[in-house]
Amino acid sequence: MPVNLTATDPAQLLPVAGVRLGVTQAGVRKAGRDDLTVLLLDEGASVGGVFTQNRFCAAPVQVCREHLTGGAPIRAIVVNTGNANAGTGEDGLQRARATCAALAGLLHIEPRQVLPLSTGVIMEPLPVERIEAGLPAAIAAAGADQWGRAASAIMTTDTVPKAFSTKLRIGGAEVSVTGISKGAGMIRPNMATMLGFVATDACIAPALLTPLARELAEGSFNRVTVDGDTSTNDSFLLIATQRAGHAPITSLASAEGQALKAALLDVARRLAQAIVRDGEGATKFITVRVEGGRDTAECRQVAYAIAHSPLVKTAFFASDPNLGRILAAVGYAGILDLDQTRIDLHLDDVHVATGGGRHPAYREEDGQRVMKQAEITVRVGLGRGAASDTVWTCDLSHDYVSINADYRS
Amino acid sequence: MPVNLTATDPAQLLPVAGVRLGVTQAGVRKAGRDDLTVLLLDEGASVGGVFTQNRFCAAPVQVCREHLTGGAPIRAIVVNTGNANAGTGEDGLQRARATCAALAGLLHIEPRQVLPLSTGVIMEPLPVERIEAGLPAAIAAAGADQWGRAASAIMTTDTVPKAFSTKLRIGGAEVSVTGISKGAGMIRPNMATMLGFVATDACIAPALLTPLARELAEGSFNRVTVDGDTSTNDSFLLIATQRAGHAPITSLASAEGQALKAALLDVARRLAQAIVRDGEGATKFITVRVEGGRDTAECRQVAYAIAHSPLVKTAFFASDPNLGRILAAVGYAGILDLDQTRIDLHLDDVHVATGGGRHPAYREEDGQRVMKQAEITVRVGLGRGAASDTVWTCDLSHDYVSINADYRS
Repeated sequence: MPVNLTATDPAQLLPVAGVRLGVTQAGVRKAGRDDLTVLLLDEGASVGGVFTQNRFCAAPVQVCREHLTGGAPIRAIVVNTGNANAGTGEDGLQRARATCAALAGLLHIEPRQVLPLSTGVIMEPLPVERIEAGLPAAIAAAGADQWGRAASAIMTTDTVPKAFSTKLRIGGAEVSVTGISKGAGMIRPNMATMLGFVATDACIAPALLTPLARELAEGSFNRVTVDGDTSTNDSFLLIATQRAGHAPITSLASAEGQALKAALLDVARRLAQAIVRDGEGATKFITVRVEGGRDTAECRQVAYAIAHSPLVKTAFFASDPNLGRILAAVGYAGILDLDQTRIDLHLDDVHVATGGGRHPAYREEDGQRVMKQAEITVRVGLGRGAASDTVWTCDLSHDYVSINADYRS
Repeated sequence: MPVNLTATDPAQLLPVAGVRLGVTQAGVRKAGRDDLTVLLLDEGASVGGVFTQNRFCAAPVQVCREHLTGGAPIRAIVVNTGNANAGTGEDGLQRARATCAALAGLLHIEPRQVLPLSTGVIMEPLPVERIEAGLPAAIAAAGADQWGRAASAIMTTDTVPKAFSTKLRIGGAEVSVTGISKGAGMIRPNMATMLGFVATDACIAPALLTPLARELAEGSFNRVTVDGDTSTNDSFLLIATQRAGHAPITSLASAEGQALKAALLDVARRLAQAIVRDGEGATKFITVRVEGGRDTAECRQVAYAIAHSPLVKTAFFASDPNLGRILAAVGYAGILDLDQTRIDLHLDDVHVATGGGRHPAYREEDGQRVMKQAEITVRVGLGRGAASDTVWTCDLSHDYVSINADYRS
């Protein structure tokens, strides 16, 4: 039961000149569902990427890092769902490489021009032969209007496909931005989310792509959490096909660079928030804003302590204004010299706590009213500086337990 | 449904000479249940304590710290359940002090000779007048044989009272050790647990009590977690009544000091493990042992990452050997230079992963067999040193969500 999230009408998703997507059923894990997707990039496209900080990163993540820094232009991306190819050791690396080689052979490019991405169960061998067998059908199905089908094909426990578009004008040219993502559990991206792709036909110096991807992830995927579990496979790719026809952007600080960044961030943030709205078992969408910190790092640290607390999350699920649990999480977030007598807490417009204690005017029924909403903002004041930061999360419900107790069955 | 935990027969709990306990119903939060406990210490007793590292520590914790370092011998401890007196600001401090003053007046001692402890709901005013009204009855009921009733009176969401005894001989004298604790949720003690008391009639230099309490907490309460939420009220008190009649212990490194420490640790560890066995919604008791680390700190960090992962905990609940989730948690635990190709994983006697991938001989049915047990040991090898550490935790079940969604209703 996603929170205020419905699938974008595929007709609303803008094609991005230079990108074609093809989807097929390869039977990776289960028969009868789209589970293999290829993104084919025309010559001249540039790709930047950021990947999980999990030290147990999946084999495809390791291969992506190699290929992105290998110097050869990326021409294709292959994504399977159903199997994460993580915790698979040297054998997993070989299977990821075999997948690249198979697609490269069909497209007459080099294996290092292919990025492999996988999502699904951990520690089971990737069925490469099924993926190889499915590739010709995926290539044959490729089209510029397949973003919606691709968004569905990369899902695992997601209940809604996540895809958004926007457009802008740069130097008289119309520029399109379209992105897709997947993820609902094992979500606490640390560099990027489970899988996210944003493509644009904007013209931009290739060297800017990876720094830009990192900035976008910081403002979007790196600000969400469902369960605090950083995935082994988090990957976020930014594709610029250089086809829009305007003068190339050579600095992100230029007016054009800023405009493009804002449009990309808009799509990336909607994709990231969609992951929380579709978080496993989510019934509430919670914005946690921490203000008055000495720097953004400590604000984020406190925001994540609140967003990860099972007690806070179950209180949101129950619509119970048991708000002392939020204060407790602030207290254990790790700021060693925190002065509890300066802490302030708002729930939307309701002033709950001041000076580290209950606000004299706070009434339980006001807290109750806000807690019943589907979208809630928690605002904590630390009273020690001018920095702030925001994190988005969801509640912890019975369905989260059911989904994760039954995931493999 | 606690895991292999039943209440100790009160007749098996050893009195500790110099300690009397009295319990009554004060109606702190609900009528008709024991919720107020006093521990009365004979002259000559020494007390050491360790308290939560939560920066939002409760008012009673602040008062305990003051009184323990104030120089006057502690003669009484007053414990209420139903209200944590945390997140209550200056008003909460005044109420904690009023409680001490009331008990001191009845006992003809100074208020600073009283330690107040509270557990229950956060951010609601402590009903001091009901506690004051209940104190005479609690004092009148005091006896040396009331450990079992006190263990019940301090419970909140606990389903089983937690109390253990042991005895040893020091210098020809028989020494008794008895301890009680409470806690089932908001359990990730960082110095001590929600509430724990261990008393002995051993003779030991008073200056050793607090360092000894810290050592005991490190080996017991600081090694357990239910939900990763460090409480605002965690307090662990060690009481030595100096009555056993042997020559005083003046060094923990002496043979007598070591013997006493071992006996105390045995009781403290059983109390700490009892909290996990009675963890909210627990159906499994999980020992997480991490070996092969460079130091114990990094082993503990990895063990806690596993023990806190909602995905790992729900897999245990489901008896599903979805063991890649454990590898993922190892990977995001924060060891930046971790080499995944050296990671080893055992589940009891089953060798699950080696070299960062599935062990060739691992069979799903072997993992399944162990996962079905009520007690499971996860053993991770990091392959980078000789240090190890152990943490105890439980699974995450539907009942955890139910208990915490309904706690205040």
